[in-house]
Amino acid sequence: MELMRTHIGSALRAARTTQGRTLRDVARQARVSLGYLSEVERGQKEASSELLNSICMALNLNLSSVLVEVATQIKLHETPVLTVVDTNAA
Amino acid sequence: MELMRTHIGSALRAARTTQGRTLRDVARQARVSLGYLSEVERGQKEASSELLNSICMALNLNLSSVLVEVATQIKLHETPVLTVVDTNAA
Repeated sequence: MELMRTHIGSALRAARTTQGRTLRDVARQARVSLGYLSEVERGQKEASSELLNSICMALNLNLSSVLVEVATQIKLHETPVLTVVDTNAA
Repeated sequence: MELMRTHIGSALRAARTTQGRTLRDVARQARVSLGYLSEVERGQKEASSELLNSICMALNLNLSSVLVEVATQIKLHETPVLTVVDTNAA
């Protein structure tokens, strides 16, 4: 079962490393502890909505964009809804 | 500042009421307490990723669809990124 926090963490870590920034730098700017940010990135801790906003701001990301990316990743793992097609229908 | 939990709660409540179901019914099926589900729906509590999955399953929703809806709602409130256009450019 896919966990939202796993994919939020991955998206935040990917953004940070793409920007070539350190945990320490982003944590300082977001005013969260380095350990907290590290745990969020590894999907070990649920980020509160407030601190998620702070981290997104520190990374210059829109939360909506992060959530679209998270939704896309989760969708890849979801069981597709099966539709029954009657091949004998006229 | 828009909080993710506010919009997750609204999306879950909208789905439940559209289905004509009670808090008690959905809470029982998701194996969460009625008080917990009520607080999540009102945006007063962060749902853990595990319990969010349970609630989505009880409502027969894909988590990815919920997150797309949440992202859409949050995007409505985000400050658009402004692009500087040089109108004197050749």
